Amino acid sequence: MNPETKVVVDTLWVLITAMLVFFMNLGFACVEAGFQQSKNCVNILSKNFVVFACSTVAFWYLGWGLMFGDGNPFMGLQGLLMITGADNSPATGDAYQGVYSSIAWTGVPLSAKFFFQLVFAGTAATIVSGSVGGRIKYFSFILFSFILVGLIYPIGGHWIWGGGWLAKLGFWDFAGSTVVHSVGGWAALMGAIILGPRFGKFGPKGEINAIPGHSMSLAMIGTLVLYLGWFGFNPGSTMAADPRLMGHICLTTNMAAATAILSSTFTSWIFLKKPDIGMTINGCLAGLVAITAPCAFVSVPSAAIIGLIAGFIVVPAVIFFDKVHVDDPVGATAVHLVNGIFGTIAVGLFAQDWVSPNTTGNGLFFGGGVKLLTAQLTGVAAVGAFVVIASAIAWYVLKMTVGIRVSLTEEIEGLDIGEHGNQAYPDFVTRKPSYRGVGITESLGAQNSGMKSSASKKEYNEVLR
Amino acid sequence: MNPETKVVVDTLWVLITAMLVFFMNLGFACVEAGFQQSKNCVNILSKNFVVFACSTVAFWYLGWGLMFGDGNPFMGLQGLLMITGADNSPATGDAYQGVYSSIAWTGVPLSAKFFFQLVFAGTAATIVSGSVGGRIKYFSFILFSFILVGLIYPIGGHWIWGGGWLAKLGFWDFAGSTVVHSVGGWAALMGAIILGPRFGKFGPKGEINAIPGHSMSLAMIGTLVLYLGWFGFNPGSTMAADPRLMGHICLTTNMAAATAILSSTFTSWIFLKKPDIGMTINGCLAGLVAITAPCAFVSVPSAAIIGLIAGFIVVPAVIFFDKVHVDDPVGATAVHLVNGIFGTIAVGLFAQDWVSPNTTGNGLFFGGGVKLLTAQLTGVAAVGAFVVIASAIAWYVLKMTVGIRVSLTEEIEGLDIGEHGNQAYPDFVTRKPSYRGVGITESLGAQNSGMKSSASKKEYNEVLR
Amino acid sequence: MNPETKVVVDTLWVLITAMLVFFMNLGFACVEAGFQQSKNCVNILSKNFVVFACSTVAFWYLGWGLMFGDGNPFMGLQGLLMITGADNSPATGDAYQGVYSSIAWTGVPLSAKFFFQLVFAGTAATIVSGSVGGRIKYFSFILFSFILVGLIYPIGGHWIWGGGWLAKLGFWDFAGSTVVHSVGGWAALMGAIILGPRFGKFGPKGEINAIPGHSMSLAMIGTLVLYLGWFGFNPGSTMAADPRLMGHICLTTNMAAATAILSSTFTSWIFLKKPDIGMTINGCLAGLVAITAPCAFVSVPSAAIIGLIAGFIVVPAVIFFDKVHVDDPVGATAVHLVNGIFGTIAVGLFAQDWVSPNTTGNGLFFGGGVKLLTAQLTGVAAVGAFVVIASAIAWYVLKMTVGIRVSLTEEIEGLDIGEHGNQAYPDFVTRKPSYRGVGITESLGAQNSGMKSSASKKEYNEVLR
Repeated sequence: MNPETKVVVDTLWVLITAMLVFFMNLGFACVEAGFQQSKNCVNILSKNFVVFACSTVAFWYLGWGLMFGDGNPFMGLQGLLMITGADNSPATGDAYQGVYSSIAWTGVPLSAKFFFQLVFAGTAATIVSGSVGGRIKYFSFILFSFILVGLIYPIGGHWIWGGGWLAKLGFWDFAGSTVVHSVGGWAALMGAIILGPRFGKFGPKGEINAIPGHSMSLAMIGTLVLYLGWFGFNPGSTMAADPRLMGHICLTTNMAAATAILSSTFTSWIFLKKPDIGMTINGCLAGLVAITAPCAFVSVPSAAIIGLIAGFIVVPAVIFFDKVHVDDPVGATAVHLVNGIFGTIAVGLFAQDWVSPNTTGNGLFFGGGVKLLTAQLTGVAAVGAFVVIASAIAWYVLKMTVGIRVSLTEEIEGLDIGEHGNQAYPDFVTRKPSYRGVGITESLGAQNSGMKSSASKKEYNEVLR
Repeated sequence: MNPETKVVVDTLWVLITAMLVFFMNLGFACVEAGFQQSKNCVNILSKNFVVFACSTVAFWYLGWGLMFGDGNPFMGLQGLLMITGADNSPATGDAYQGVYSSIAWTGVPLSAKFFFQLVFAGTAATIVSGSVGGRIKYFSFILFSFILVGLIYPIGGHWIWGGGWLAKLGFWDFAGSTVVHSVGGWAALMGAIILGPRFGKFGPKGEINAIPGHSMSLAMIGTLVLYLGWFGFNPGSTMAADPRLMGHICLTTNMAAATAILSSTFTSWIFLKKPDIGMTINGCLAGLVAITAPCAFVSVPSAAIIGLIAGFIVVPAVIFFDKVHVDDPVGATAVHLVNGIFGTIAVGLFAQDWVSPNTTGNGLFFGGGVKLLTAQLTGVAAVGAFVVIASAIAWYVLKMTVGIRVSLTEEIEGLDIGEHGNQAYPDFVTRKPSYRGVGITESLGAQNSGMKSSASKKEYNEVLR
Repeated sequence: MNPETKVVVDTLWVLITAMLVFFMNLGFACVEAGFQQSKNCVNILSKNFVVFACSTVAFWYLGWGLMFGDGNPFMGLQGLLMITGADNSPATGDAYQGVYSSIAWTGVPLSAKFFFQLVFAGTAATIVSGSVGGRIKYFSFILFSFILVGLIYPIGGHWIWGGGWLAKLGFWDFAGSTVVHSVGGWAALMGAIILGPRFGKFGPKGEINAIPGHSMSLAMIGTLVLYLGWFGFNPGSTMAADPRLMGHICLTTNMAAATAILSSTFTSWIFLKKPDIGMTINGCLAGLVAITAPCAFVSVPSAAIIGLIAGFIVVPAVIFFDKVHVDDPVGATAVHLVNGIFGTIAVGLFAQDWVSPNTTGNGLFFGGGVKLLTAQLTGVAAVGAFVVIASAIAWYVLKMTVGIRVSLTEEIEGLDIGEHGNQAYPDFVTRKPSYRGVGITESLGAQNSGMKSSASKKEYNEVLR
């Protein structure tokens, strides 16, 4: 193909798939809002909206350079601020002259590279929004989003996609089960732990109370938008219009989602007696997260098996986080963290050399031994340790300074009024949230420190009145 | 153009339009949920979600081979299971060596061919979901979806797009008014008939009771998503980046939708006194279904006329199915079946040779005589007879074995709780569905056999209490 | 690149981005419905749906020819009706032979040119729908839409994109801040003024009553769909697959939206005490409208500044229209008119020659002097004067003939029942709209003439009963 033509078709593919990934912002907003209470709906929508604005500014100002700038194995050090480093994209390989050489394998203009990577960075940040929903201060969430996309995400990303030490180790993550989803998932988990659970989620004797989401329609809209967006996320990560690979990745991505929908549906049917729509939705997303790392390295039947497993494990994973009293209102950790890890490991098990020659080689199940699997496990552990520490520091610094949790009165009334002065559905008659017979004083006694620190004696009394 | 370049741009077009068609799953989910009651919303969303997972597995495992595998005029017989037949795509024409020769006219990789055809198969199955809404067992719907996409749809499709006997007869259906929409429509009609109407839809003296849908917002979201998806459905069916034809089909598709919106709006304004939003929505979809077969064979002014007619006939068609006591909660038969048939016939009337030379030739209105029209009518009748028989058998087998209808108590309470243990909108105060003064015992007497067989004496009494 | 290949890739880009712009119909429908009351929801959705059907017919029948047909500096005169003029597209430049020479710079088929321009015309018309919501007669809105897209929009557009007098003057509007947004905005403003405010919006002593929108979820869905659509609107306006420019425009567009989200959020936080979701949403849209004209002429940092300003000014703009008692239920004038003007002026300030050589040259802030700025201001004033006069005439003619405002009784009950015989959410218990202690007789006294002319004494009494 004419080199000029190749730049054009590659750019078409990269920009169009980037737009699909951008659209996942709507998917996350709808799923996370639908799975939470109507009294917090404006707040969740606002968080999931503003987060992409924060991501844009943070990734442009600093994140891009830290992630893709030439530097050491741990972070980029050149062309750091506002993408101002030298660059002669779309030149590739030896013809490339610039400071973003780790991404010089794709022959598209720098603007297209940045736009594509930006929408991925935004995804990691938006994952956090769901887990901390219903009790976080809006301003603190905005600050955390800047930190995550400006610092934490790009450093982890540099290790893998920026030519850093994990890339050199032979760790493979095609479209971001680790780089995006488990980074977002770990940050979300730390947020949920440090904030503490929503009032009423866990009773004084450790009972787990379901707090049902306010709109399954909204959640389903979000899910199918995310599913569509994943056809940008995974096939787009070729960052080149390679017909064979684009088509193959569409199939592996779709197949894993499909088998995960079926396995989560039947798993919840068996364990919870009925096919719960929340489990089916999270099953689908789990399958999509799990196939994200291996989508370009495994066969379609392997993708079917990966999806089956992902759809199964999301059900016990959701139950597990409830059991250990981590309050994740939307199941983001079960989906993005647990299945981000599983998908990354699945590369080490299911990879086959013929799918993308000269990349992963064969995984354990196809005669490749444990070398690839070991690299994958190393990456999972290293990225996990880094994000847990870095995001915990960030959350604690925010807690000590601006505070991270709203008052108890505001939480009970709903964050829409307290944080935004808005109501999501003012024309409709809504139910007062019941706390299911849990006496407020008793319940407060059982709350963890994150809770205690933000609700004063006076506030308790106001609630009790 | 360089042959390698052609493969790239064709694959870009096929994959991107396939993604748009995939997105129609959201459109169907929203339209069908919006047009039904809130107590059945989770169930409808779940059906429209799981159906694409079923379609993926069924079409991959068997459907694709039956439809496009080399075989006899009635079904594919080679390369049946899991797309494992020999194939050297993207080679085309004489260079093609493989068992899927009926689709070797498009020069894209096998994965892209499969992905594009899969999203079409999924559409046929999701059409059924609306018509059987509000009373079907979730498990039976899942089983029927496997049968439809694994067996019925691909056999009908083989006759037309798989090089079968209708293709040889000179029957033309560019993007699937018959292959997809009327196949789905016939299966939906048989389901609606065999299930019987929802409780309360028809009174003891044959009165027709309107059961209004619970969210016109949701219905409108769905409609515009479907409209967008149709720009994948019709222009994408070129399966090649042919600038003239792609652009032309965008115009015919859009023009038919536009005139159908206007004609259905004014038809309902005249006949129902006011421009009912449900009729306007179904009018738009009717226009889109009708232009699906002829979109590449007719001029833009002809498309305008086809849309005008489609938007008109959907109004009496909806009224007709009510009159004959077929309870189709969303009007899927009026839209997909009636206008699938009309659109197929429209090819025989409006086709002009210059639009796509060497395909249909001229239709009746442009001097082509009745030859094309006869072939179109033959196809409509043959596919109709086949799908009516095959789907009736499938529905009856399911009825005899696992049962197809939920209990009356569950139906009245809503399938969300009965089938899924969920509520779609738990925070909102909803109205109890009234049965509009229809005494329950009287009404039950008027129910058809589908109803009677699933509601016991004991259940009647529970409802009456 | 091979010329044939260039036609293919350019057509791919034009059609795909046109589809994204088409999808903005959903965005407008959701934002405008979400920001208005549930009792008018069906009406708003219907208006925003039917308007694209009207646009299709009007722009096909007449608008296209008036806008792009060869003619004089004020309107097209050749190839007027139904795009039937001579045309040998995709030929460009000197090779072009036809009557639509002003758009012969893009090398795509005529059908693709028309489809792309049609979806832009539809956008202008749909802007009007929001501002006139809650009191306009459905039929009058349909008629106005035909007039706007068939006559007013294309004449204004001819001046700028059709090779007319403003184009010759050196006025630049890359993707339509003026051509689309401020044209729609002026027509919306005139509609809002001539109709008069909704009953209860302004009290007898001039108090401004907030009438909150019924669904922030719907509004947010709409906003993110619009944001996605803008990646068609702006980058697609290259009408050619130019890798550098496509990527650059994705970045300027996104950056302006992001900084506008942040600045509107913090502006409302400071001035209204809390980060109001309505302001954040309108801030985002303001940033997108403002970057529409300059997106291909300014640098990314300039785009960031343009967005910051747009997000700021939308807040006082919304407050201003309230203060002068113009009732615009969705803030369309503050978004599309005010920021359409600002964005057009921003070209004259921020343009840099290197971004798109041989177009605008440098603006005032980059050493280009006031020449460009003067041309931009001239265009803003001329288009404004024309649309104000033309749309005022159209609104008054409609008022004198078919009438433009529904009865007071109908308005208070809601237009869904009065105009359509539908309810948007029949299953849900909704609140009666309170008129906040404003006595109806008093309030009526304060209504303007638009109001008085359509509500009879008898109707007042019915309301009072």
